[in-house]
Amino acid sequence: MLLMMGLLAGANARPQNSPSLNLMPWPASVQNGSGVLKIDASFGVAFTGHNEARLDRAGQRFLLQLQRQTGLLISGKPVDAAKATLVVHTDHASKEIQELGEDEAYTLEVTPLGAKLNAANPLGVLRGLQTFLQLVDVSPDGFAAPAVVIKDQPRFGWRGLLIDSSRHFTPMEVLKRNLDGMEAVKMNVFHWHISDNQGFRAESKKLPKLHGLGSGGAYYTQDEIRELIAYARDRGIRVVAEFDMPGHSSSWFVGYPEVASTPGPFKIEEEWGVMDPAMDPTNEKTYKFLDIFIGEMTKLFPDHYFHIGGDEVNGKAWDANPKIQEFKKAHNYKSNDELQTYFSQRVQKLVNKHGKAAVGWDEIFVPGAPKNIVIHSWRGPKALAEAAKEGYQGILSNGYYIDLMWSAARHYAVDPLSGEAADLTPEQKKLVLGGEATMWSEYVNWENIDNRIWPRTAAIAERYWSPQSVTDVNSMYARLDVISERLEWVGLTHRSQPRKMLQRIAGPSTPQEFAALKTLADVLEPVKDYTRGETTSYTAITTTPLNHVVDAVPPESDTARRFDEKVSGFIGGSCRDANVAAQLRAQLTKWRDNDAALQSLAQKSFLVKEVAPSSQDLSAVATIGLAALDAMASGTPLSDDAKAQAAATIAAASKGKAQLLLIPAGTIQKLVDAAAKAGACSAKT
Amino acid sequence: MLLMMGLLAGANARPQNSPSLNLMPWPASVQNGSGVLKIDASFGVAFTGHNEARLDRAGQRFLLQLQRQTGLLISGKPVDAAKATLVVHTDHASKEIQELGEDEAYTLEVTPLGAKLNAANPLGVLRGLQTFLQLVDVSPDGFAAPAVVIKDQPRFGWRGLLIDSSRHFTPMEVLKRNLDGMEAVKMNVFHWHISDNQGFRAESKKLPKLHGLGSGGAYYTQDEIRELIAYARDRGIRVVAEFDMPGHSSSWFVGYPEVASTPGPFKIEEEWGVMDPAMDPTNEKTYKFLDIFIGEMTKLFPDHYFHIGGDEVNGKAWDANPKIQEFKKAHNYKSNDELQTYFSQRVQKLVNKHGKAAVGWDEIFVPGAPKNIVIHSWRGPKALAEAAKEGYQGILSNGYYIDLMWSAARHYAVDPLSGEAADLTPEQKKLVLGGEATMWSEYVNWENIDNRIWPRTAAIAERYWSPQSVTDVNSMYARLDVISERLEWVGLTHRSQPRKMLQRIAGPSTPQEFAALKTLADVLEPVKDYTRGETTSYTAITTTPLNHVVDAVPPESDTARRFDEKVSGFIGGSCRDANVAAQLRAQLTKWRDNDAALQSLAQKSFLVKEVAPSSQDLSAVATIGLAALDAMASGTPLSDDAKAQAAATIAAASKGKAQLLLIPAGTIQKLVDAAAKAGACSAKT
Repeated sequence: MLLMMGLLAGANARPQNSPSLNLMPWPASVQNGSGVLKIDASFGVAFTGHNEARLDRAGQRFLLQLQRQTGLLISGKPVDAAKATLVVHTDHASKEIQELGEDEAYTLEVTPLGAKLNAANPLGVLRGLQTFLQLVDVSPDGFAAPAVVIKDQPRFGWRGLLIDSSRHFTPMEVLKRNLDGMEAVKMNVFHWHISDNQGFRAESKKLPKLHGLGSGGAYYTQDEIRELIAYARDRGIRVVAEFDMPGHSSSWFVGYPEVASTPGPFKIEEEWGVMDPAMDPTNEKTYKFLDIFIGEMTKLFPDHYFHIGGDEVNGKAWDANPKIQEFKKAHNYKSNDELQTYFSQRVQKLVNKHGKAAVGWDEIFVPGAPKNIVIHSWRGPKALAEAAKEGYQGILSNGYYIDLMWSAARHYAVDPLSGEAADLTPEQKKLVLGGEATMWSEYVNWENIDNRIWPRTAAIAERYWSPQSVTDVNSMYARLDVISERLEWVGLTHRSQPRKMLQRIAGPSTPQEFAALKTLADVLEPVKDYTRGETTSYTAITTTPLNHVVDAVPPESDTARRFDEKVSGFIGGSCRDANVAAQLRAQLTKWRDNDAALQSLAQKSFLVKEVAPSSQDLSAVATIGLAALDAMASGTPLSDDAKAQAAATIAAASKGKAQLLLIPAGTIQKLVDAAAKAGACSAKT
Repeated sequence: MLLMMGLLAGANARPQNSPSLNLMPWPASVQNGSGVLKIDASFGVAFTGHNEARLDRAGQRFLLQLQRQTGLLISGKPVDAAKATLVVHTDHASKEIQELGEDEAYTLEVTPLGAKLNAANPLGVLRGLQTFLQLVDVSPDGFAAPAVVIKDQPRFGWRGLLIDSSRHFTPMEVLKRNLDGMEAVKMNVFHWHISDNQGFRAESKKLPKLHGLGSGGAYYTQDEIRELIAYARDRGIRVVAEFDMPGHSSSWFVGYPEVASTPGPFKIEEEWGVMDPAMDPTNEKTYKFLDIFIGEMTKLFPDHYFHIGGDEVNGKAWDANPKIQEFKKAHNYKSNDELQTYFSQRVQKLVNKHGKAAVGWDEIFVPGAPKNIVIHSWRGPKALAEAAKEGYQGILSNGYYIDLMWSAARHYAVDPLSGEAADLTPEQKKLVLGGEATMWSEYVNWENIDNRIWPRTAAIAERYWSPQSVTDVNSMYARLDVISERLEWVGLTHRSQPRKMLQRIAGPSTPQEFAALKTLADVLEPVKDYTRGETTSYTAITTTPLNHVVDAVPPESDTARRFDEKVSGFIGGSCRDANVAAQLRAQLTKWRDNDAALQSLAQKSFLVKEVAPSSQDLSAVATIGLAALDAMASGTPLSDDAKAQAAATIAAASKGKAQLLLIPAGTIQKLVDAAAKAGACSAKT
């Protein structure tokens, strides 16, 4: 046995005071030790206690990842516990089909002499191995992991990522690398949104026209689905399939118009938005069809939970069908909501009949809904709290819609137990199972999906796993920077692919031209929320290429965020720090002078031309920022006129153009405001 | 049929005057047309004439690649010729097993209305499709291919890349993406160096201890080998296996010491260099063994040529064995060379017996060798010319050793028909079949192999394919820049992986620190030739990590090359261009000031610390460069003292450190020389 005692020191570490440990999600308990465990080619791992093939594979994957992130050539041959650098002990097996709420706790002790990872079952081992990988980094004396004792378990049992494979098909390899990313940040539910208006993507053997006519040929075979489920299980991830109904189902009706509310014919939708077609809830054929379908799919997807969607039924198809109107009258249903309740309850019973529990969006939470359903809230914590008060389980996605292009900080601030949910009783709080980040894919394909999901989802994963008190945004960003790079080593492309996309946008170009495009792109973000259509001349549909600058740039500009932090600090310090002033001046000068090369490139590429106005804006606001610094240096506050002119220019530059926002514009307004004030910030230093 | 006439204009284009066509290798004939063919999501390709499954796959691959390099979402559904944007016509099938010298010619006509690709057989189609892909690029009005008529065929029939999978095992996916790269630049021979002292990597069913004991578990199964050969055939690439013998064979003897010249036991070698162990050429057992072995492997590898190595036998094992000495005496062999000739001829007969022709390194070219062998020359064009004069076929690798870390220009300047070979008769010249770039893998693994092979090998591929007159280095570099980016779209990682390696080397760091490392790395190159051991404190072996800066930086620094071009132009223009002077000053200032952030990072990472002295050197030589510019601006030539001091500093900075060369040092010496001269370059402007 390795010595694990006597080398620990220091208080319980917190992310706020342990910036040197780049762990994400931050563990429940971290106690810093002294010294480091060196990691070199002699590294070996041994598994003791309960063993199974999944643990062998986890060990191999762990070693491969360790090699990738260090470049060491580790033999990977099995070693016994006496010689191992890392000894893993597993008490017993986990459930054959992974269940909600299974124990994921582990303890990890690292000393200069070795490391020990203990967990009750393989799930805890998987979590602990990822923590160990995050501990290893380059040091002044080789690669090393710091001495530490970590005792860890998740705050929530449902930590999910939804990927919408309907709006754009997600190739298997893309799904797999995202599952790898999920494992790296301890997420445990892959919510597969596998059917929608724009494509039915799961092979059905019993109803083969579903994928046959509803997918345009882009679907997953049942073998592939089983392969993905096994891949996920290896990583401690449940796969919850969602077949959205009764709306969001145009693609079903291409092959089976007989279960629709209107006569058809139907086509695979090419546009985005809420569509009219919906299943006919008044036709017994519909339930026979769904019985067969749910029977097949609940066998294919072994998870206990089966997601039936239920969102965004606009009722138009029902209103257009006289028979449905008659049915409503006959049953005394006063609204389409009541009709949908009828449908939902019939479907929930079918799900139960096949041994599963139903999950659905907020709309399924209606008076009288069976208690075993899980409410998936896209509407907000209030809805979740109301459900919990009536004894319903729920998961939160409102606040975690990563297709809205929000900052990591904004998602990070959302807590499933905030707002109305904060006032729940402890028992009610237990009904809030966790949350899911949702990657709706209208503007997402194989190429940019990674940069839409990562690294922001790592911050969301921390929200789901770590203690509620872990909220420091600066610590989050500091660690996210490191974790983001690590996620590329598991195979994600969120950092490398945007650069390649920019190279394609630039086309053949000089280094100066490409650098100009990069400099501009580094401070642009996609417009927020669902506003992309507002600044384009075309309507995006399923075949619209996602090859524009807006598709390439990440949702959040690191450069702009750092510039804003620097400006805020500068102003907060009464604009006296000459060193920071010089740095700001250098940055602003670079931006001001960036436009010439950009415009030259814009003559050659239509995709660059789109952002040429943003480049002029950047130059203009940078010029204003420099004038503000000049004013501060001279000790003469900006005149009201100059301030007003600057504000007008900045306001114009702040408007979305080519679906993009120029983020530093707002920061430069802060400089202008400071420069216009008589007082500290305009005092000559 | 599409209209193909009437839109052509302009003279026969040459790389020198058609910089806008980024084709590589440059075709045999290019005639520019006017206008462009627009490429959008409606693009369709139709195949007419002879068809086969390989062409279907080529079409799918072509469309996938077109989508990658444009970001367009092309449906990819089959279209008929009347509607197709590109109509491909194939006259007839090619050989079932691809042969040396098969017709690879094609014609490609592009007009604003459509494109037509014609070839005698699928090989020409494969080549033409790659040319079409290279024509497509971003334009002011969307993606487009320029109107052009190309008539093309290769200069040499043997255009090879050798990958050494013994020194470091090359994973299948790495081989595949390199075959994709070969296809992109029209190479047609993958020379698989699959056994050597450090590992026997091919599964043998008849002699299972070869891979079983000789590979450390890292070998290719026969299924994988067949898969790779099929993959290569799809891309018009022959696979020539090399089993190097009688030397370079320690790994064979681990399982079969009985065919060695010395008693053993043997181990898989871990060190680099020429090793003593060699097969026993005097023992009939050896030939029985080889008969079985060659019988099995010539079936597994269908190509007509079978490479038997034959290089670098140091003779020590033979000298140490009294029986072998007796044999030499009995046969009146005066040297080990003569003994090797005996061995070679026996092996060549076995190869012939199994229906194949032997290829071997220079050493097999001895008086009396059978005429059907191919001499593979690592020694040089002289050896090749001598062989041709005696009627032997040959291929050249001397000059194409890409593990020597030479510039693309240096390899590009080597012509298989240069030197002594230039004086051969036309008939003799035909015996020079082509060449092979050789990727020996002592310092190469899965991670950096792409950046060792690419993009330089594209320039070598042009040497093998294009007319001998295509030699303009500026044109080559201009096109190589574009092709290099394209090669990343086929899946190669030569541009993206080095950046990731640098991130790992840096570890957690500020943007300024990482930028400093990048700036330094951008002007460092690995030391040239086989001198890596000279500036390290350790001896590299098979398990030495390849995670140092020297492993990450490409063989050739683009930044340093461009700086050198700029300085040369500046001096050539009598140092009068104030604009260029300002650019040089900006670059030198950046280098001079880069050291602070680099040294800060060096405190945190042992891998950065290794290059800290190079960073100080960069700062020092940049300071000298700035002083030289000052002297020019002032009109006062540098004093002899100043010149001497500068030269000493530059000489010190030019020495290899941490296996790296600081490339701009030599360029800055040019500035110093110019600044020291009284006259044009020191005249005040």
